[in-house]
Amino acid sequence: MTEKLSGAALDAALAPLRDNGWAVVEGREAIHKTFTFANFVEAFGFMSRAAIWAEKLNHHPEWSNVYKTVEVTLATHDVDGLSDLDVKLAKKMDDLAG
Amino acid sequence: MTEKLSGAALDAALAPLRDNGWAVVEGREAIHKTFTFANFVEAFGFMSRAAIWAEKLNHHPEWSNVYKTVEVTLATHDVDGLSDLDVKLAKKMDDLAG
Repeated sequence: MTEKLSGAALDAALAPLRDNGWAVVEGREAIHKTFTFANFVEAFGFMSRAAIWAEKLNHHPEWSNVYKTVEVTLATHDVDGLSDLDVKLAKKMDDLAG
Repeated sequence: MTEKLSGAALDAALAPLRDNGWAVVEGREAIHKTFTFANFVEAFGFMSRAAIWAEKLNHHPEWSNVYKTVEVTLATHDVDGLSDLDVKLAKKMDDLAG
């Protein structure tokens, strides 16, 4: 069962993500990051890799793409906030973009 | 050279797109459509096919995806409005989603 992260557990989970450019969305228990690539092919290549992982994790991002930029927002609807799934997918996306 | 569509040419180009669910964005010379699929794999499969066409046409969408929904906005920055490229990509997307 997916559990909502809060308090010290949430702070601990967020610290390394903040270091990698993730930020909590204002007014919402969600995290956001802007990924920028060299061009559209690189940006969509990242999305393709991330999409496969999202499906594997059965946890899907809210995301948008304009040419070489990909905006990603992660949250866990089932817990109306953030869970380990968001942390896992955020880290995976950082790896894939790296 | 890409030319901006306006007047009667724009109206003629937009008519069949409107019939397929495209609408002009309020306050902006751009068109928008919401595509809805059975699930994430179908939605991202559509995006993958459309991405390859966008790159082939060298004309890229502004688009977002949340699970089975894909929101697409098309405009031509070079002409600060709509051009044949938007009409072409919109029709191609309709074909790919069909």
